[in-house]
Amino acid sequence: MSNEVQKTDVTIVGAGPVGLFAVFECGMLKMRCHVVDALPAIGGQCSTLYPEKPIYDIPGHPAITGQELVDNLERQIAPFQPTFHLGQQAVSLRQSGDGGWMLETSDGTRIESKAVIVAAGVGAFGPNRPPLAGIELYEQQPPGSGVQYMVRRKEDFRGRHVVIAGGGDSAVDWAIALSDVAHSLHVIHRRPKFRAAPESASRLQALAEAGKIDLVIPYQLGRLEGAEGRLRAVVAVDLEGNERTIKADALLPFYGLSQDLGPILEWNLNLDSNHVTVDPTNCRAGPDGIYAIGDIVNYPGKLKLILTGFAEAAVAAHQAHHNAFPGQALHFEYSTSRGVPGVK
Amino acid sequence: MSNEVQKTDVTIVGAGPVGLFAVFECGMLKMRCHVVDALPAIGGQCSTLYPEKPIYDIPGHPAITGQELVDNLERQIAPFQPTFHLGQQAVSLRQSGDGGWMLETSDGTRIESKAVIVAAGVGAFGPNRPPLAGIELYEQQPPGSGVQYMVRRKEDFRGRHVVIAGGGDSAVDWAIALSDVAHSLHVIHRRPKFRAAPESASRLQALAEAGKIDLVIPYQLGRLEGAEGRLRAVVAVDLEGNERTIKADALLPFYGLSQDLGPILEWNLNLDSNHVTVDPTNCRAGPDGIYAIGDIVNYPGKLKLILTGFAEAAVAAHQAHHNAFPGQALHFEYSTSRGVPGVK
Repeated sequence: MSNEVQKTDVTIVGAGPVGLFAVFECGMLKMRCHVVDALPAIGGQCSTLYPEKPIYDIPGHPAITGQELVDNLERQIAPFQPTFHLGQQAVSLRQSGDGGWMLETSDGTRIESKAVIVAAGVGAFGPNRPPLAGIELYEQQPPGSGVQYMVRRKEDFRGRHVVIAGGGDSAVDWAIALSDVAHSLHVIHRRPKFRAAPESASRLQALAEAGKIDLVIPYQLGRLEGAEGRLRAVVAVDLEGNERTIKADALLPFYGLSQDLGPILEWNLNLDSNHVTVDPTNCRAGPDGIYAIGDIVNYPGKLKLILTGFAEAAVAAHQAHHNAFPGQALHFEYSTSRGVPGVK
Repeated sequence: MSNEVQKTDVTIVGAGPVGLFAVFECGMLKMRCHVVDALPAIGGQCSTLYPEKPIYDIPGHPAITGQELVDNLERQIAPFQPTFHLGQQAVSLRQSGDGGWMLETSDGTRIESKAVIVAAGVGAFGPNRPPLAGIELYEQQPPGSGVQYMVRRKEDFRGRHVVIAGGGDSAVDWAIALSDVAHSLHVIHRRPKFRAAPESASRLQALAEAGKIDLVIPYQLGRLEGAEGRLRAVVAVDLEGNERTIKADALLPFYGLSQDLGPILEWNLNLDSNHVTVDPTNCRAGPDGIYAIGDIVNYPGKLKLILTGFAEAAVAAHQAHHNAFPGQALHFEYSTSRGVPGVK
């Protein structure tokens, strides 16, 4: 981290797929970008929540996993040499001297630019943590042990005693997926019914009847037992206070995601609860030079699709060009005619 | 061609990339589609004009040729089994009995649907034909002979006497490309200067000085000589009426493309010269149930990018759902959760 102010054309808040593609669209208009993200890696939800799940609605990709999409976008923007500031939350945004904007991150990095594109999705996001005393002691364990909020590789859980908590799609899907590798698999849910897709719920029931999965319902997480960060058991409790102690190497709580726009709420944008209201034909988020795109924005008819965010990135980049190069006309050219700098 | 009326949920006019992706978006909402295009194959301009040129601005594809993009889209929509009516121009569109729309093609095919999505790009497009008497006699010859408006394979012209007419990029680029396979190569242009990229124009000049290409300037096409569809010579004429007869197996006129919205102009859409004006948040093109997307539409800030058309396809499909299934609520789901019918 340096105290020196870094200068660029456009600062992009959020390194999810839409933020990454904004680098491309800005690059095609000869604007350099810095990108800030609270996560330690690029890719946003795609990389963090569903790296291995296929996405079917990216045009020109009959199926592509979240991580493949991010990898492709990384290659696509490489010619434009963006500067990334990862693992840092964008904290404050204020006007700088000469009509530009100064963004400061949680690490104290300061970036001055002519325009800012907010592609922050649902904000800094993370799993909802169960309110269990001492849970943090188990959260930094290697994959397949302790408390984990996602499955990177099924194999990590082979031969393990696994407890899943929750009743939605993630809980049910992962229970089904891990049932053939885990040594034992318990699912704790506070209701007798699961909120998953009907087909998945039936498969779960069938696996339970076949003795592959043990449904602990209606129970809630009570407490964790273990020592020195090593989980030994999960204690489930029902409404009457009855307890069941379940042997566990790993607990996977799937209680949904917390979404926190945090400091962005203070930036004087056109907010409507947790969204930034924009006109989709210019993606202006409020003060001149600040644009918002992707899942964070709302307008009548807005579709929360990655591809919609991609198109919004093109709109915001064209608008940001007015801020970066005032008065300079923008001649439209096709990428086939013009090519990409550095790409033969 | 059958006289029977074919019924479907959505009729899509135009099988370019945007029209194809509209099939996908409709399919994800459980709507079946018929697709009409004047060209004999799917892919629109991508397949016809630049099948081998790389496109750089399709998100998630660092580079993809026009034909690859079309091939990928074809695979992406295959699970939805669209019905194609190719080589037929969409001619008339009128209200059908029960609140739907009846589209009729130049072949007499009649398609009744609840909604119509017009993704017609620049309209039925084709090469501008030189106004030469009897030219049609030479237009149906095999590649490498007669009058051809495009080069599919350079090899078709090996050892041939080739005449190129025109002074733009296509004329100059193909003159350079064919100069090493043709037996003789003449370029007829009505001005002494060529309108091509400076580098290409210099290469043309160098090849002319080396005797590889014969520049016939400033001349225009006068008439064609031949018999029974076999071209023998092209006669060029200058402003004073002087003639030059040039031996020719093949004439390649590169006079640009004509773009013809044709019958679409009569459909009571919200037209503004050659575009349909839409509100991008619903893509309504005029009467209820008719939508327009892609290069044919205009609105403030509209970017004529393929990816913008893709996003508009999603908007139009969601709107068309109201027509296909009135009163039925549309629950938003991600493709990762729901999957694609027929895809595991």
